[in-house]
Amino acid sequence: MQRRDVLQMLALAALTAPALQVPDAHAGIKFDPNAPKPKFVMLVHPDMVLLDLVPALTAFKLTMGDVQLVWKDRDPVRTDVGLDIRPTATLVEAYAAPDVLFVPGGLKGTVACMQDAEVITFLEKTGASARFVTSVCTGSLLLGAAGLLAGYRATGHWQSRYALPHLGAILEDGRVVRDRNRITAGGVTAGLDFGLVIASIIRDEEWAKSIQLILEYAPAPPYDAGTPAGAGVALTTLVSDLLKSGLKPLDEAVAQAHARLHL
Amino acid sequence: MQRRDVLQMLALAALTAPALQVPDAHAGIKFDPNAPKPKFVMLVHPDMVLLDLVPALTAFKLTMGDVQLVWKDRDPVRTDVGLDIRPTATLVEAYAAPDVLFVPGGLKGTVACMQDAEVITFLEKTGASARFVTSVCTGSLLLGAAGLLAGYRATGHWQSRYALPHLGAILEDGRVVRDRNRITAGGVTAGLDFGLVIASIIRDEEWAKSIQLILEYAPAPPYDAGTPAGAGVALTTLVSDLLKSGLKPLDEAVAQAHARLHL
Repeated sequence: MQRRDVLQMLALAALTAPALQVPDAHAGIKFDPNAPKPKFVMLVHPDMVLLDLVPALTAFKLTMGDVQLVWKDRDPVRTDVGLDIRPTATLVEAYAAPDVLFVPGGLKGTVACMQDAEVITFLEKTGASARFVTSVCTGSLLLGAAGLLAGYRATGHWQSRYALPHLGAILEDGRVVRDRNRITAGGVTAGLDFGLVIASIIRDEEWAKSIQLILEYAPAPPYDAGTPAGAGVALTTLVSDLLKSGLKPLDEAVAQAHARLHL
Repeated sequence: MQRRDVLQMLALAALTAPALQVPDAHAGIKFDPNAPKPKFVMLVHPDMVLLDLVPALTAFKLTMGDVQLVWKDRDPVRTDVGLDIRPTATLVEAYAAPDVLFVPGGLKGTVACMQDAEVITFLEKTGASARFVTSVCTGSLLLGAAGLLAGYRATGHWQSRYALPHLGAILEDGRVVRDRNRITAGGVTAGLDFGLVIASIIRDEEWAKSIQLILEYAPAPPYDAGTPAGAGVALTTLVSDLLKSGLKPLDEAVAQAHARLHL
């Protein structure tokens, strides 16, 4: 990427993100409004984890992407933290062949979608045409239920990704796992690392680094408790024991999908 | 914190976050609904950066907190990525003495708030009574404009925090900086580290670690470009040059606040 291109990109980033707006900074830089913008289709679903979505959404926007938030209708979708997201397009209106198809997680919402024929049909169809098929957190379980991970290496939230092989995927305990055009990420906050990886692929490495600098993504967690290994046996056992029964509906949905997929 | 308390906390977390819902996991654990819940008042403002807010909001919710999203009215507030947030309370309805007062950033929205007497008066009043006065990203500039950082060490987004000393603060280039009851964080993604720090203070270290594990916060950025030092001179210069004129309105707002504060 040339210096001039970086400047163009950042001028556009500034226009897209009002917080970084620089209206008259580089008036001499011209942008071709007819140049194709990467198309992103992001599924939003009831009970989804908002933090699964927002880092990826922010990175996608900063690639100068054309982002659709899609659901069955345009009614507000309630997320885990109580905030509503208003879809910008219905499943029918979604781009048929986007550059990136994205699915966020949240176990309850994921399980509901895995058993929803309308959502599964949408994912099968769009997943077959999308340039990249992607997810954060338990979103990979939904991709798997739509048959989109059969034979692909994939990851997901540490607590539920054990189910991926039952959906035909090859489980890999990575933070961001790419296998051909399937790119899956680990739980919740992995969406930040994922967003930069996508930006580097859709644009390039320098563009992705610029986004990282704008977002000041130089993480410094106060503890090393973000994985079962780091958290240790005692804390992980507590969390796992508690969440265990949340996995029962998942296991049922996985069994149904397994039968339907003829794996 | 006892094992039993951790279980209670996580059972509650599961109820608050539907994605992690475990309705019948630990039916034997009793929770006292009369026990005080920590109160959080989070300002939301037009053009704010959504990613400044969501990690902190998620962490606050997982402390079993009672969270208000406050603005002048309850009309939807447009954020940088185009998503709207609906305030849950007005500035008048906000808790007068919350455990945590929180201000997100976004340069354009921050500058507007710095020059808005209604917002400044609200922050002066609530900041004087809050147990902790906090911010992410350029939010610290708004705290500074309300006179809340005079004589306190504070940080903010790398690109604009140079202005903090003009608002009476002692600039510290940290990711999360605590000085007595003022806790400020760096740009955008610093809100993740910040959220865990707040959880550890409001609850305790084990609670914060549990949240970190639930959110799988084991960051693995693909590059080391999250700070000017990591991004290097060339990339930082590009970004800084571009954003430079966005700082002109900030400098004017800082000058006005400086005069008003009699610093």
